[in-house]
Amino acid sequence: MPRVLYAIPGALSKTALGPEEVQRREKVLSSWSAPDVDVAVRDVPTGPASIESALEEYLSVFPTAALLRDAEQEGFDAAVLGCFGDPGLDALREITTRMPVVGPGEAAFHVASMLGERFGIVTVAHGVVSPLRHLVARSGLSERLAGIAVAETSVLDVTGNRDGMIDAVIEQGRALIERRDADALVLGCMSLAFLDITAHLEDALGVPVVNPAKAGLYTAEMLARAQLRHSKRTYPQPAKLATGTVARVEDLLF
Amino acid sequence: MPRVLYAIPGALSKTALGPEEVQRREKVLSSWSAPDVDVAVRDVPTGPASIESALEEYLSVFPTAALLRDAEQEGFDAAVLGCFGDPGLDALREITTRMPVVGPGEAAFHVASMLGERFGIVTVAHGVVSPLRHLVARSGLSERLAGIAVAETSVLDVTGNRDGMIDAVIEQGRALIERRDADALVLGCMSLAFLDITAHLEDALGVPVVNPAKAGLYTAEMLARAQLRHSKRTYPQPAKLATGTVARVEDLLF
Amino acid sequence: MPRVLYAIPGALSKTALGPEEVQRREKVLSSWSAPDVDVAVRDVPTGPASIESALEEYLSVFPTAALLRDAEQEGFDAAVLGCFGDPGLDALREITTRMPVVGPGEAAFHVASMLGERFGIVTVAHGVVSPLRHLVARSGLSERLAGIAVAETSVLDVTGNRDGMIDAVIEQGRALIERRDADALVLGCMSLAFLDITAHLEDALGVPVVNPAKAGLYTAEMLARAQLRHSKRTYPQPAKLATGTVARVEDLLF
Amino acid sequence: MPRVLYAIPGALSKTALGPEEVQRREKVLSSWSAPDVDVAVRDVPTGPASIESALEEYLSVFPTAALLRDAEQEGFDAAVLGCFGDPGLDALREITTRMPVVGPGEAAFHVASMLGERFGIVTVAHGVVSPLRHLVARSGLSERLAGIAVAETSVLDVTGNRDGMIDAVIEQGRALIERRDADALVLGCMSLAFLDITAHLEDALGVPVVNPAKAGLYTAEMLARAQLRHSKRTYPQPAKLATGTVARVEDLLF
Amino acid sequence: MPRVLYAIPGALSKTALGPEEVQRREKVLSSWSAPDVDVAVRDVPTGPASIESALEEYLSVFPTAALLRDAEQEGFDAAVLGCFGDPGLDALREITTRMPVVGPGEAAFHVASMLGERFGIVTVAHGVVSPLRHLVARSGLSERLAGIAVAETSVLDVTGNRDGMIDAVIEQGRALIERRDADALVLGCMSLAFLDITAHLEDALGVPVVNPAKAGLYTAEMLARAQLRHSKRTYPQPAKLATGTVARVEDLLF
Amino acid sequence: MPRVLYAIPGALSKTALGPEEVQRREKVLSSWSAPDVDVAVRDVPTGPASIESALEEYLSVFPTAALLRDAEQEGFDAAVLGCFGDPGLDALREITTRMPVVGPGEAAFHVASMLGERFGIVTVAHGVVSPLRHLVARSGLSERLAGIAVAETSVLDVTGNRDGMIDAVIEQGRALIERRDADALVLGCMSLAFLDITAHLEDALGVPVVNPAKAGLYTAEMLARAQLRHSKRTYPQPAKLATGTVARVEDLLF
Repeated sequence: MPRVLYAIPGALSKTALGPEEVQRREKVLSSWSAPDVDVAVRDVPTGPASIESALEEYLSVFPTAALLRDAEQEGFDAAVLGCFGDPGLDALREITTRMPVVGPGEAAFHVASMLGERFGIVTVAHGVVSPLRHLVARSGLSERLAGIAVAETSVLDVTGNRDGMIDAVIEQGRALIERRDADALVLGCMSLAFLDITAHLEDALGVPVVNPAKAGLYTAEMLARAQLRHSKRTYPQPAKLATGTVARVEDLLF
Repeated sequence: MPRVLYAIPGALSKTALGPEEVQRREKVLSSWSAPDVDVAVRDVPTGPASIESALEEYLSVFPTAALLRDAEQEGFDAAVLGCFGDPGLDALREITTRMPVVGPGEAAFHVASMLGERFGIVTVAHGVVSPLRHLVARSGLSERLAGIAVAETSVLDVTGNRDGMIDAVIEQGRALIERRDADALVLGCMSLAFLDITAHLEDALGVPVVNPAKAGLYTAEMLARAQLRHSKRTYPQPAKLATGTVARVEDLLF
Repeated sequence: MPRVLYAIPGALSKTALGPEEVQRREKVLSSWSAPDVDVAVRDVPTGPASIESALEEYLSVFPTAALLRDAEQEGFDAAVLGCFGDPGLDALREITTRMPVVGPGEAAFHVASMLGERFGIVTVAHGVVSPLRHLVARSGLSERLAGIAVAETSVLDVTGNRDGMIDAVIEQGRALIERRDADALVLGCMSLAFLDITAHLEDALGVPVVNPAKAGLYTAEMLARAQLRHSKRTYPQPAKLATGTVARVEDLLF
Repeated sequence: MPRVLYAIPGALSKTALGPEEVQRREKVLSSWSAPDVDVAVRDVPTGPASIESALEEYLSVFPTAALLRDAEQEGFDAAVLGCFGDPGLDALREITTRMPVVGPGEAAFHVASMLGERFGIVTVAHGVVSPLRHLVARSGLSERLAGIAVAETSVLDVTGNRDGMIDAVIEQGRALIERRDADALVLGCMSLAFLDITAHLEDALGVPVVNPAKAGLYTAEMLARAQLRHSKRTYPQPAKLATGTVARVEDLLF
Repeated sequence: MPRVLYAIPGALSKTALGPEEVQRREKVLSSWSAPDVDVAVRDVPTGPASIESALEEYLSVFPTAALLRDAEQEGFDAAVLGCFGDPGLDALREITTRMPVVGPGEAAFHVASMLGERFGIVTVAHGVVSPLRHLVARSGLSERLAGIAVAETSVLDVTGNRDGMIDAVIEQGRALIERRDADALVLGCMSLAFLDITAHLEDALGVPVVNPAKAGLYTAEMLARAQLRHSKRTYPQPAKLATGTVARVEDLLF
Repeated sequence: MPRVLYAIPGALSKTALGPEEVQRREKVLSSWSAPDVDVAVRDVPTGPASIESALEEYLSVFPTAALLRDAEQEGFDAAVLGCFGDPGLDALREITTRMPVVGPGEAAFHVASMLGERFGIVTVAHGVVSPLRHLVARSGLSERLAGIAVAETSVLDVTGNRDGMIDAVIEQGRALIERRDADALVLGCMSLAFLDITAHLEDALGVPVVNPAKAGLYTAEMLARAQLRHSKRTYPQPAKLATGTVARVEDLLF
């Protein structure tokens, strides 16, 4: 029975949405997963409220590294990093050995590339456009990227206005298809992903729309079933931990 | 309950391995799949005995198109094209509308790219090296390809000498790691994939080894669960079929 | 006296245009060729009526392989594959050894790249836009491609409305020049090529317009005169033929 | 009189090298700078001891952001991020508005690209090879990179064995020149940079060797003199700070 | 005290602007340089009046090679090639050994790439657009180029209408930002550079604007201070000079 | 009857080989051309003795521009630039309007790309390796280039030791095939081309070998027959000539 952790790199419980939103996401993911998969959702105790800039991406890494290190020891078979920007994905893969860590952004780009020639991303914050372009480049798929569009809103307000959000995403998605020649779309924000609106968007736009939460979850299931782990040639354990110079991730900062 | 077809584009039943091998592969795939997935394996009635050249890839497309068209009508939720070279994948996606078609080569390249920086491919026939290089290019992942190596043998003899085969793959895999800087490996042949030797190879080589049969199967499961289909902007229905100039795939050739 | 075969990979004789069109094309090509060159035109006995999708490209390969194999044995010095999409060009080069096979699309892209910085393609069917983009990528010239535009019509109707066709091509060509910064154009369909309208288009548009039938023919002449053949390192003979496992191309399918 | 801050993103004062090493580096940089430039060196109060992994790169960003925010308010004209891996450079540019932040890695890659066709990097820790490859990619100069070699040692031991260090760098540099066709070299570690050994290496190897501390310092001088600042289109202020949702960088983490 | 030569590859003294313009540029450069730098400006005795085509670029190389050869013997520490198109930069680096030669175009592209993700170039002659695109490609930064725009005028008239020139540059710059997504701009002509209008443009456009004369000057200062020279692996001395077959640059042409 | 000029951009008549070598090359080219083509060979009155550096490439452009301008006025239908490095090809295309100018290097790269996946170049002077790499890049075919090897000799001595030359080329060609994975070769020097040794090399090496003199000649024939000219969008006439500011090419230099 594969155990998958969905690790939120922000302090979601402390925001206005509260711990109920963490539980709600666990229920949603469980309803999507294969019947034999056990999904848990956890957020970090301290971290950014939301991630809308490169700076906030970096701030999230340290607490998430500890969360994932603990999850691996606890026996999880795979983890999904619960933020579309995949913040610190390389560092998190340095920390774990047996448990693969999936970036939902990276996973979604790969899935979209298998569905059409070029994909567009609709996100909700101008501050992440440049980081997302670099994320696509790191995934090796820049030549498949049609463009990145922003449906104006604050990440924290996404859930408050579902219908307005859908209209804004349809408008930006249409622009990516008609003006930038996108053949498929990726939802570029996890709050958007948990609105579960892809069927609605596909009807309106006529192209496949990839939900990064599903792409991340199913990729984690795949790696767990196939017992695939990340290459330690690419993601070696930090030298100070490997040699025992420091005992714990927490001791790297002093 | 997702139904997945694994469609073999060669006349495997007619070869010395016979229909038993088709049934064996169905059993193996069923043992790998999630508990709620129903996997069927079918081969084409007429086609190449095996695919070891670009020419044989093209020969396989016509009968496979008919097989997949029928499978879609029968209600399958996703199909895997049972040949690592993904022969005619774009044409097969033109034919189907509701049922996504997964190429195990393409799927394996994307999975390997998520596990390490550069991947190498170990295949078994010199004649497919150049076609495989183009397949990687079509997937958009050329800059992640470390190299393609050939473990000398005939595709049809792969199953006859399991141990010799493993040794040959380890030797070629080691060369890709040490001389071409590969961080992960992909098995480049479905006969190799069904030997189920990745755990053995990972122990010997210390890098993740992607089994394309599993990558294809789990990607098909993912698309079926997420109800994702290929973009008809990239893979439009052939005009003669769309306009009714001809009634059936079989009538395109006259 | 170099002998060049122009091999049509569709069953043109069986269409409404009939065998007269095959003969007409032979006359046109002969009028274009150098005085010492002998050009023959042949179509396949069975094949697609026209090629307007990836699927029809693949359907054409098997009969064309037999046609070219015979032509080589008959003593032709070079062959041109008579379809702009160069369907199965790699497979056809696997089959022949002494006789080079020229793709008119590939040849036209190379010629256009020598005439200006970026070239645009005007074709006549939406279904080939994506395959043509991949054809340019295979030729290695993607960064020189300004764009692909479609002058709406059916391939089979191209010859019926010469003036309307010219106007449509001029309109699309102008858009490629003004909006996509094309410095040269390529006619992306052989039926268009045999209308012999490039001088008219160049007058109207002010940029060079490459006729793929001429690019293919003159490239074949060049290779024949220079006695250049394709590299068998890139296009090896299929293993089953090389080892005698099967005797003839026709026996690869069973 | 341009004021330049060299900001060390690790807690160098707390290591065995102590605050003397911070002062020593300030003296060295002052001896290199133009006569009218005032250089200060500061390290962060809390941070990694040294940066030998992607994880340690991310850990350094938060305290460095505060350090640079203060420096801008204090009136510095430009800052150099004192670590070759340019950790969090994009985030640090989000925080500052008037004061440009220079990455010595990025600066060194650009200088090396102006001196020869391909450059190689000699660094001292295996853990940063993969992050450095991505840093070159972000600078846009991947096609100019000949390779990255590691002169085995711990970053913290670099200064302890100057002669052994030089020999190890010469050996790796020679391999990059002879086997990877490097035309110029970049020292890939700031501890190496402050050994001031480039003249010695150039004599031994016959190619230019770029010192990233000098490349960073002189680039900062250039930007300060030309009054050039980073583009806020690429590096916008984080939305929560821009809108006043939070008052200070320190409040982004909660 | 670093000595820098700004070498104008055209016969500027002989044009209507006369030797006063040469002296004026020397004064301007001296006012920009660090206090310990000695800047001299010289033009070639024979050369093109201005450089507005690829042909004129090539015409300038021979006299400039002699000018730079002499400057190196005279003891200059670095030279800047005083034309934005960097005409013959590789050949001029073949001639000198100890004295680095800086191309202001190349230097400006590298500086702009450090300030934002994509840069646009505003130049003044249609005839150099294609050569400039190739210059960016040679610098390795094509993927960072947003576009090249032309503010219509003759190079020789740039100085005559300062206000009109500024308006034209602002208009083209705005188009590059809004339609081509440029994050920074580069002035693409040295006559424009000596109008010293970047502060004005930055106020109007809100993005950094790189003055190539400053980028070239400060890069020359940097190389002189760091004692960096070009790689003779990339820019070897011409064989006839190296072997003594001819004694002087002037004797290569006979 | 197409008239083709082979224009040698060096003062070959003045070298030890003398005007006889010019006449010999005319005879050889005439023996290669189609029966209805008239080939003339001319060298420039003043120019480099041979071209073995970037500097010598630039020196050759001015006299060659005058030679080609005259040839166009005289009625030639196409010209081949008789040096493998294609020196100043863009400038020469600026000067002519009706008469296309073919670069034999560029033409050979395109032909080789149609014969195999990757091509290697064997040249005879270290000083042109870097310029040739840039020439390939300008042709857009860098990803098809396997490598450039040097068969050590002086260009002027190529003809003196035919057998030694052949052995040296075979050795370098074999290295490109075996170590750099070349599928086809290009002779990278016109003196080598006129030795007419490709059949010998193909027998020894088993891959196609492209003679750039033939590639250039037949490409010129092709363009002349198809009445194709260069795009004036890419190669505009120099503004001073277009506007009449100067009357003749010779007056651009003053």
